[in-house]
Amino acid sequence: MYVHKGTIYFFNTKNCYIFVGEKNNLLVCPSTLYIIRYMNKLPERIRIKDIARLADVSVGTVDRVLHGRTGVSEASRKRVEEILKQLDYQPNMYASALASNKKYLFVCLLPQHKEGDYWTDVEAGIKRAVETFSDFHITLSISYYDQYEYASFTNSGKEILAREVDGVLVAPTVPEITSQFIEQLQKKEIPYIFIDSNVPSLRPLAFFGQKSEQSGYFAARMAMMLGERPKEIVVFRQINEGRLGSNQQENREKGFRKYMQEHFPDCRIVELNLYAKRPDEDEILLQRFFIEHPQINCGITFNSKVYIVGEYLLKHNKKDFKLMGYDLLSRNVHCLKEGTVDFLIAQQPSVQGYCGVESLCNHLIFKKEVKQCNYMPITLLTVENIDFYLDAHKKQI
Amino acid sequence: MYVHKGTIYFFNTKNCYIFVGEKNNLLVCPSTLYIIRYMNKLPERIRIKDIARLADVSVGTVDRVLHGRTGVSEASRKRVEEILKQLDYQPNMYASALASNKKYLFVCLLPQHKEGDYWTDVEAGIKRAVETFSDFHITLSISYYDQYEYASFTNSGKEILAREVDGVLVAPTVPEITSQFIEQLQKKEIPYIFIDSNVPSLRPLAFFGQKSEQSGYFAARMAMMLGERPKEIVVFRQINEGRLGSNQQENREKGFRKYMQEHFPDCRIVELNLYAKRPDEDEILLQRFFIEHPQINCGITFNSKVYIVGEYLLKHNKKDFKLMGYDLLSRNVHCLKEGTVDFLIAQQPSVQGYCGVESLCNHLIFKKEVKQCNYMPITLLTVENIDFYLDAHKKQI
Repeated sequence: MYVHKGTIYFFNTKNCYIFVGEKNNLLVCPSTLYIIRYMNKLPERIRIKDIARLADVSVGTVDRVLHGRTGVSEASRKRVEEILKQLDYQPNMYASALASNKKYLFVCLLPQHKEGDYWTDVEAGIKRAVETFSDFHITLSISYYDQYEYASFTNSGKEILAREVDGVLVAPTVPEITSQFIEQLQKKEIPYIFIDSNVPSLRPLAFFGQKSEQSGYFAARMAMMLGERPKEIVVFRQINEGRLGSNQQENREKGFRKYMQEHFPDCRIVELNLYAKRPDEDEILLQRFFIEHPQINCGITFNSKVYIVGEYLLKHNKKDFKLMGYDLLSRNVHCLKEGTVDFLIAQQPSVQGYCGVESLCNHLIFKKEVKQCNYMPITLLTVENIDFYLDAHKKQI
Repeated sequence: MYVHKGTIYFFNTKNCYIFVGEKNNLLVCPSTLYIIRYMNKLPERIRIKDIARLADVSVGTVDRVLHGRTGVSEASRKRVEEILKQLDYQPNMYASALASNKKYLFVCLLPQHKEGDYWTDVEAGIKRAVETFSDFHITLSISYYDQYEYASFTNSGKEILAREVDGVLVAPTVPEITSQFIEQLQKKEIPYIFIDSNVPSLRPLAFFGQKSEQSGYFAARMAMMLGERPKEIVVFRQINEGRLGSNQQENREKGFRKYMQEHFPDCRIVELNLYAKRPDEDEILLQRFFIEHPQINCGITFNSKVYIVGEYLLKHNKKDFKLMGYDLLSRNVHCLKEGTVDFLIAQQPSVQGYCGVESLCNHLIFKKEVKQCNYMPITLLTVENIDFYLDAHKKQI
């Protein structure tokens, strides 16, 4: 457990090596190759002092270059940067961030939901990220909006804008309403990340989610196979006062209809609207629907609540209906295992939440580049393959 | 870049924190929480000496307990272990392994293959793992066997047994032949890992691969949907002198036949054997097959070479045939994109190779526990969702 000076210490299998020099200096490298190069070519010369000597500048100049401060001539900066590059010198962003006293407030704006709903998993990912980066003085608070009330998004947005916020994670509502909030963030130069659905025109720092239209397009192909080219297919929706409540639901349905138009223009698409705020009516609406449309034997949902239909089928022991939906809510998985839901499409909600917060940290704290568009895989799960998916994803974030 | 003694240095976002104590001692922890606990409760008392004092034993005794050596009374060992546990003390296995001069020779035994074949991806994963763990004096050599010649496996096995080998990674051939080799490894107490297909009765240290039968069972459901409940379906096989060459191919077909027996007992399963060692004959065999069976419009392969059929269909502009297969060989993906292959099932070959080597390192070098059975997800890819899968997996090992 004691440091042997001049020895390579390997602390992590992934991407971090630490070299402890004779003078008690530490170097962090992505690979021991770099350390070995230093040891052979520049033994014990890995300190700022040595970089300064190589560049023929003062230690203060190297420090200024490393920290992006002014007061360095262009020529000196270039020389120092060249040497840093040759040495693959990695200034330790983590250590500087830790040393800094800067505090960060992140705010998430997510749809209101109940425990066990889709957003529970997103929040789990967000919380894990906050834990991971807790050393960097970050605080995160979550605000909620009613998916079916645009004013609710706007009001929550205003509350966020009234605070001293450093970064925002948003699950966007319809583009028109989202843009009002985003424009204010842009004015204040507050970075924002989108998760779940993207509004590319609002140019977020990063987006994490499925390509919704393509996901609906894929779902259509699978549903038509599942239903054996049905003549009619029903789309079960969650609405409130005529509104769908999520871009995902809308865009997936768009992609679905595009596929149908291209491949099965004669298949009739029937809609059954279920009322998000009046779940008590689901039973009677479904009952009425199945009485009125006895010939329809295939349906799909583009929201995460396929279990509403699946549990209805289970309760009424209705086995002749093919059904597919989205997301691995435990009630959905239960229906899949019981056979009333045939297919589920997964989209890694906790990864979306985790990566959203991580991106804010990378951008604001570690000054790393952030990839703008990050699509989640579109994964088809059935009773035959779901266990292997769940098993493999347990290990992941 | 200088160490400030008594400061927490955070070097990696994932799982490694380093504490540099006043006396130049280093502590590696999975979380800063532990370090903060030390700092509050046991300031600068995180050395073996302090553990010794707390346990009322000598430093040598603590060292012996830490390294699992003998010469410690049961009572002392218990006391030391209790304190280590209370402190969440993590002996730095990596540092000890690095300090050690022990050299390790790993040997892989894989099927012979050409560049671009399925096994290329497995080897890429193996090579990346060797690179990752290169500091630990590991050498890896790959031996090959002819999948269609049992004697070849046996001979390669003998050559491996003649060397001073520390660990073996095997893609098993048929159980009877595999077991002869494995029994010799067991006698010599050489740990072995299985990838690709499992022979559970031979109790490998770990297995990485798909659950082959379940994968075939899933594939059958998908194929029957794809072909719209065809009355006949063809299984294209790769054989040599009547042998299938891989457990995967055999077990997937078993799972496929199980599903068919349970759900479509009346569907006729036709076989077309293609000869692995006489690819020149593929064209004529396929041609003859399609002439003799004009009514068959759906087929499946359980090996990785669905492109043989896909490219034939492409060449002959035959668009009325539904085809599915396994693995993301670039030629397979090309056929998927061109529309002559409809479905591919992915199984993460490079993860299998990487994890196989990693498990040997964890077991032999880092003395970590290794999970025995590791099933890969069974992922269905179509032209509509493959890009998102490829994109997401680029980032992974």
